[in-house]
Amino acid sequence: MERIGALAEITEEPGRITRTFASLAMRRANQLVGAWMREAGLTVREDAAFNLLGRWESKKRGAKTFLLGSHLDTVRDAGKYDGPLGVLTAIVAVQSLRERGVELPFHVEVVGFSDEEGVRYQTTYLGSRAFAGTLTTADVARIQEKQIVKARRNKNEFLGYAEVHIEQGPVLEKNNLPVGVVTAIAGQSRLRVEFQGVAGHAGTVPMNLRRDALAGAAEFILAVEALAKKSNLVATVGKIEAAPGASNVISGHTRLTLDVRDQNDARRIAAVKTLQRKAKVVSERRALKLIWTLVQQTAAVHCDKKLTQIFSQCVAQRGLEVLKLPSGAGHDAVALSAICPVAMLFVRCKGGISHNPAESVKIADAQVAVEVLADFILRLGRSA
Amino acid sequence: MERIGALAEITEEPGRITRTFASLAMRRANQLVGAWMREAGLTVREDAAFNLLGRWESKKRGAKTFLLGSHLDTVRDAGKYDGPLGVLTAIVAVQSLRERGVELPFHVEVVGFSDEEGVRYQTTYLGSRAFAGTLTTADVARIQEKQIVKARRNKNEFLGYAEVHIEQGPVLEKNNLPVGVVTAIAGQSRLRVEFQGVAGHAGTVPMNLRRDALAGAAEFILAVEALAKKSNLVATVGKIEAAPGASNVISGHTRLTLDVRDQNDARRIAAVKTLQRKAKVVSERRALKLIWTLVQQTAAVHCDKKLTQIFSQCVAQRGLEVLKLPSGAGHDAVALSAICPVAMLFVRCKGGISHNPAESVKIADAQVAVEVLADFILRLGRSA
Repeated sequence: MERIGALAEITEEPGRITRTFASLAMRRANQLVGAWMREAGLTVREDAAFNLLGRWESKKRGAKTFLLGSHLDTVRDAGKYDGPLGVLTAIVAVQSLRERGVELPFHVEVVGFSDEEGVRYQTTYLGSRAFAGTLTTADVARIQEKQIVKARRNKNEFLGYAEVHIEQGPVLEKNNLPVGVVTAIAGQSRLRVEFQGVAGHAGTVPMNLRRDALAGAAEFILAVEALAKKSNLVATVGKIEAAPGASNVISGHTRLTLDVRDQNDARRIAAVKTLQRKAKVVSERRALKLIWTLVQQTAAVHCDKKLTQIFSQCVAQRGLEVLKLPSGAGHDAVALSAICPVAMLFVRCKGGISHNPAESVKIADAQVAVEVLADFILRLGRSA
Repeated sequence: MERIGALAEITEEPGRITRTFASLAMRRANQLVGAWMREAGLTVREDAAFNLLGRWESKKRGAKTFLLGSHLDTVRDAGKYDGPLGVLTAIVAVQSLRERGVELPFHVEVVGFSDEEGVRYQTTYLGSRAFAGTLTTADVARIQEKQIVKARRNKNEFLGYAEVHIEQGPVLEKNNLPVGVVTAIAGQSRLRVEFQGVAGHAGTVPMNLRRDALAGAAEFILAVEALAKKSNLVATVGKIEAAPGASNVISGHTRLTLDVRDQNDARRIAAVKTLQRKAKVVSERRALKLIWTLVQQTAAVHCDKKLTQIFSQCVAQRGLEVLKLPSGAGHDAVALSAICPVAMLFVRCKGGISHNPAESVKIADAQVAVEVLADFILRLGRSA
């Protein structure tokens, strides 16, 4: 926790925590965390994508590598825990195993990825995708640091990847549990939905002659909420713009964003289709024009059954209820899933708040995460 | 119509029509319209509030004055008709009466008010309120041209005020009529409504744990629409801001504007109360905090029965159906009602569009307005 505090001091914006890809703040963060890695007995280097790597070599011949980690970059005006908690718990877990004289049949590499949030270039998982070799030419085209493609690693090296991360949601808190085992990282559909009506004077156009784009949007927002509840997934309208946007003018054009997520891709895609149908019905009834644009779509990533089972055993071993939950947010594990099996452990965070200075994790919960992660590596070593 | 076109060329923003209070464009507009007033035989002057006055003196001793007019300022990127149509039809009507050798038992003063839209200082009816002597100290405090208080006229001078204006709504067009007689100018309640919930991650907060301010706002927007339809008045949510306003964040705070208008003040006030109750119910059910702020409230202005009856007779005399309708928009007649009886004649405009370059009025409809207004003055002269 002291380390979390020290790391939070490193920022590119005085007075708030902001560390973006390839910034001076990220270089300094890597130096500091690298020093802690060395203290834990790891061999430290930075790769071509500015990912920080701390390696613990196994004595076993022909051993493969198990990856632990998370990211060290942040959003603007971030909290202290989103990212760093996963890197620092991994360092402490590894250090405790080394101090106990544990020898493993695989190498362990602790990674502090350089760009998960994608703040600088709007390129989510930039560091971990460079590592996994899954950057697209479009990604490389939009960044200055073209050399990051050299960070690509050989997928045959790796046994798997495990990541500790704050939940960023309220489920563990509601269930009064310090940690939870992640089953899958939700797939996501991002859409832009626009209703075009006719702008008009708020005082002179009778209600029955209106084609109010904002009223249509309001009906759609409630349909989104109702369908999400019914289908047991999450769907959100987070942004809305009603043009022209004056108190005395009926909106002629309203745009909004739609974000639908679920661990079940088929269910998510069916929900989006149903919502498109609802939007059409609303638009036709109100004589509005509907513009429906799919912005992005990513499939769900399922955590590895064996690794997840080991996490569950480690949690149960501490006398804790094993709560399995999907992750609605994306993580570096999504990028790593392209090259090896992945697993995640969530840590309770206060009020489910993240991407905010109010992010808060209890010391005792971080301690549980460290111990579960150390047990996880031990069990994995035994089972290998 | 040529004059309307010539006046539309005078603007402070090249490529679009914008004439704000005390601008060079307004000075030039007054010069041009003043020249047309002189052509009509009127004695022209500009008062301390930059209102343009064209006077036709009656020979009758102790005669009072009847006012005709509208405004010459515009919104930004305006149409050609909102305001100027009323001033120019008055000039032509007066000119035709003078050419016919008509003598009236009252003076006629045609007024081009200098600031009805209030674009420059957000001071609606600035010119006509200076004229009527109803500026508040707050109004005077926010403007540079303090001398406008000197434009105040003695209310005992005036017999009444009649204004021709485009409808700014679709009712006349729907009824296939060139003009309509205004019964009242609607009272208005303007409110700011805010819902405070809890911002959260769109992927990680389950639907049943959300306190989504935008979803609450959507429910309220539909309640506004439903109540307006049921109560036979107009109510509009034209502006909405959902904060923080990101596609992947549940809105923690949504503000919107509410505009309620009706010619019946009691009905309007009852509707606002009902909507406040609805907003409370929505907020309580969703565990949101409601902030309800009355921004402005103006009472309805009823047009004078006698003057309105004369307008109706003049319309009927032309073989036209007399459609009586309220005005949902405000007009200089509101300010003038403080010092004398007022009446208004609406002219059909294409699609009910106003405050937009697409404003359009047929030549034939403007002609009807001129003739009805001339008849109105004649009949008024006979009845006086």
